[in-house]
Amino acid sequence: MSLIYGDPYMTVTDAATTTPTWKYSVADMVKVGEGQTDDYWSLRVKMPYHRIQYQFAVEGSDGQHVLLSDRGIRADTAENRLKNNFRVPYFQEVDRVKTPDWAKTTVWYQIFPERFANGDQSNDPQGVKPWNPEDHPGREDFYGGDLQGVLDHLDDLQRLGINGLYFCPIFKASSNHKYDTIDYFDIDPDFGDKDLFERLVNEAHRRGMKVMLDAVFNHIGYQSLQWQDVLKNGDSSRFASWFHINSYPLTPFNDPSNNGGNPQYDTFAFEPHMPKLNTANPDVQDYLLEIATYWIKTFDIDAWRLDVANEVDHHFWRRFYQATQQCKKDFLVIGEVWHSSQPWLNGDQFSGVMNYAFTEQVEEHFLTSQQTAQNMVELLTDQLMMYRQQNAQVMLNTLDSHDTARILTVAGGDEKRALQALAFIFTQTGMPCIYYGTEMGMSGDNDPDCRKPMDWSQLGQPIWQKVHEIVQFRRDYAQLLGTGSTRLSVNSTGLIKVERVGSAHLTAYFNTTNNAVPLSMEPKLAQGYDGENLAPKGFVIEVI
Amino acid sequence: MSLIYGDPYMTVTDAATTTPTWKYSVADMVKVGEGQTDDYWSLRVKMPYHRIQYQFAVEGSDGQHVLLSDRGIRADTAENRLKNNFRVPYFQEVDRVKTPDWAKTTVWYQIFPERFANGDQSNDPQGVKPWNPEDHPGREDFYGGDLQGVLDHLDDLQRLGINGLYFCPIFKASSNHKYDTIDYFDIDPDFGDKDLFERLVNEAHRRGMKVMLDAVFNHIGYQSLQWQDVLKNGDSSRFASWFHINSYPLTPFNDPSNNGGNPQYDTFAFEPHMPKLNTANPDVQDYLLEIATYWIKTFDIDAWRLDVANEVDHHFWRRFYQATQQCKKDFLVIGEVWHSSQPWLNGDQFSGVMNYAFTEQVEEHFLTSQQTAQNMVELLTDQLMMYRQQNAQVMLNTLDSHDTARILTVAGGDEKRALQALAFIFTQTGMPCIYYGTEMGMSGDNDPDCRKPMDWSQLGQPIWQKVHEIVQFRRDYAQLLGTGSTRLSVNSTGLIKVERVGSAHLTAYFNTTNNAVPLSMEPKLAQGYDGENLAPKGFVIEVI
Repeated sequence: MSLIYGDPYMTVTDAATTTPTWKYSVADMVKVGEGQTDDYWSLRVKMPYHRIQYQFAVEGSDGQHVLLSDRGIRADTAENRLKNNFRVPYFQEVDRVKTPDWAKTTVWYQIFPERFANGDQSNDPQGVKPWNPEDHPGREDFYGGDLQGVLDHLDDLQRLGINGLYFCPIFKASSNHKYDTIDYFDIDPDFGDKDLFERLVNEAHRRGMKVMLDAVFNHIGYQSLQWQDVLKNGDSSRFASWFHINSYPLTPFNDPSNNGGNPQYDTFAFEPHMPKLNTANPDVQDYLLEIATYWIKTFDIDAWRLDVANEVDHHFWRRFYQATQQCKKDFLVIGEVWHSSQPWLNGDQFSGVMNYAFTEQVEEHFLTSQQTAQNMVELLTDQLMMYRQQNAQVMLNTLDSHDTARILTVAGGDEKRALQALAFIFTQTGMPCIYYGTEMGMSGDNDPDCRKPMDWSQLGQPIWQKVHEIVQFRRDYAQLLGTGSTRLSVNSTGLIKVERVGSAHLTAYFNTTNNAVPLSMEPKLAQGYDGENLAPKGFVIEVI
Repeated sequence: MSLIYGDPYMTVTDAATTTPTWKYSVADMVKVGEGQTDDYWSLRVKMPYHRIQYQFAVEGSDGQHVLLSDRGIRADTAENRLKNNFRVPYFQEVDRVKTPDWAKTTVWYQIFPERFANGDQSNDPQGVKPWNPEDHPGREDFYGGDLQGVLDHLDDLQRLGINGLYFCPIFKASSNHKYDTIDYFDIDPDFGDKDLFERLVNEAHRRGMKVMLDAVFNHIGYQSLQWQDVLKNGDSSRFASWFHINSYPLTPFNDPSNNGGNPQYDTFAFEPHMPKLNTANPDVQDYLLEIATYWIKTFDIDAWRLDVANEVDHHFWRRFYQATQQCKKDFLVIGEVWHSSQPWLNGDQFSGVMNYAFTEQVEEHFLTSQQTAQNMVELLTDQLMMYRQQNAQVMLNTLDSHDTARILTVAGGDEKRALQALAFIFTQTGMPCIYYGTEMGMSGDNDPDCRKPMDWSQLGQPIWQKVHEIVQFRRDYAQLLGTGSTRLSVNSTGLIKVERVGSAHLTAYFNTTNNAVPLSMEPKLAQGYDGENLAPKGFVIEVI
């Protein structure tokens, strides 16, 4: 495949006919990936006048030559090469999609504050349960984790190698997960106060760690002043237009998922305790933007993670993105979107999203064997090629989280498989993220079971050491792994091959077959490799 | 093909296992078009809670059954039907892409003011040439057309049937085409003045005609105050940052298209007399937005057509769109973009574009026989499906314009072929547009030849009558043709079939073969149809 390209206004005049025609060049393209139904080809060209028009000269697998143009597939004739071009009319710097460079070299660590560490027993909620990492937490249980606990363990996290802290919500709320915000301008008293949070951010920054908070702007808590006012005053409440209300009276709630009729107000899912905010209302927008900028301006946070981001309108996110970018240079915005996210990733809303669409496919092969290596490689390639490179580089690649079962559990308790999948994610484009406790070898089924109290007994033990090495490896080759090109394939012996090319050249193999495979590598990081054979569940990573 | 769909949060609980699973429906889809490589299928569903997740159950031509999901093509299993869905997470009215309803029933008429009619000889420029419709105008010629000439002929245009006036630039400029604006706040004195323009708009509105002006915001005229100031004062000019300047001194201009080295400033194409405006500069933005809103607020115009719109940055167009929409409800914005236009048609920049990507394919079949009927139908279907319906309905479908050869000339002087192509465009989704003189059977090669003085001798003559009938037909079935569904195909006898379904059911056949084809129809409009056979170059349109 080759590219036919040139400046749209550059002409060459035929001496015989004296007719000017478009002046174009032809350059070979390089295949950079094979997806499920499409191949991906790439080429870098430099255009001096900010403009390019182009089409593709394609040789089919049947040997047929055609042009792929803006006006469809055409015969490859001299005349057709001059017209029907795709076009970048005039590239404007202001339109360039920008994502923060720092994020590309960040390894995140996700903290569920109620379960990370209890550093201050004086703020424990009533009826707190004993800190037992073997416990299976119930939906309503409290264990007393708090921000002091995080501060106490910052050195441990630094030692692990991570350089980004991603906090689940810390604002005042009723539940243990705090996704039902009562007051966005306050730290939950069970977790600490603003002075403590300021110290925590400063101490994190002093260690070179970035801080990301979780903003729940899709809905508000049932106990919030605003919703309580609506419950009390009905449609005469000055907050009535803050919500999507269909009918009064508001209670008892009609739950359609339970054959309960039409809901009186829109909620997150059909959860009556999470009334959905009407973000088309400018008052609501202003309120939420004040929150968004307050925590940046006052506490210098580096990123927002946006809960249920896909269910909030695009107009609001555009305002949100502008406001946060004006507030702090290189501010990162990550949306919670579980599906393909093109509508949010065009430079005007989010930097990246929680990349479940990518990481779940890794799990489906590495951890649960639901799909073949070839399938996974093709689908991951499709995912990678779906977005601009700068967005793909700041996708939040979490194998597990507070919303999913832990990888060790998904892997049926097989530690080697879990570590192999983790190492794979750490070799990929996108920001890797460790869910608290992964380094302690913690298990846990779907939530709330994945939210057990942290098992601090494993600090520095073999499992911690292995996770540390994977994290440290990513940090050691942060530039290459953060920004290098990515090529995935399955080789003839069934090994999954990862190539990353940038400041250096990385080659990695992952053995997800049932047999040891002969392989000669000089690994920087490996599992199950004896210098000659790569064992099942093993991996080997070489960097030259 | 069928759709598997439901509210993402609606579950059904299995009595035996008591496990809740997603509750979905399955509905057959209807094939609505066949493109060059893809088929298009459609289905209308209503979701009570603003949310839908879905995937497709596809039967391949080989009989294989698969699911097409957000995570690729998967086996059609009961388990896979529950996951990997595409998603509209929560549809927000504020995000809905809106285009003006009035535009969908508008037939435009494009006026090149210098050549339409000379209604006032007192404002003729020096050295004006005699009004000879047979003349072949040179690049620098003037003929004295003006706004009074348009006003004088409004009744003729109303009689023709059109209900939208699209003016090429009328602001103060040096050239005959006025694309080199000197002052955006003034009517060109060769054309008239503001009082006259106000009268013209009012008279048009009184006749139910909308008015669209041409805004040249990509570049400004060489003689403009701003550019002259930069020429005089160099980088100390307060307008220096209004342009993209690469180096001083600015003259003589280095023309890279003529091996002249690097241009000192960016221009339209490599045209030194059209210096490109730096629309990333907020001062430039404010200036242009003042212009954009001034002509709406003061003269009540209904639409802007934006010249070289693709080379201006998206950020500016977003501000422009907001400003014009706030100024006037249902304001229409049409961009000049000659290629695929998805980046501009997402509700935040343009309503539609000049649809050359569509209309040129019509010409390539109907007028120049460069592609087969089947090819054209497939490529037009691809074009139609490329955009949201509401955008497709307000695309400006011009078969010719001041920038192209006239259809009669492209058709090699064959009036029947030209009328057949025109009638075809008038049956399509998108706003049809007549270039002045088409109704007079005018010919003309590429510009400037397509800008001959209007041939008023043909008013009311047979060619005028035929064009009038086509226009009137569109107006008579404005709702159906403006908003009905569209299906294109080629039937077994080689006829091109057009179906439009909405308030009524339209079926049209166009014979572009060399043979008469037997056909039984009761036409509302026809050419070359004797009740039994449709002659070559003929068409027949039936509405039930």
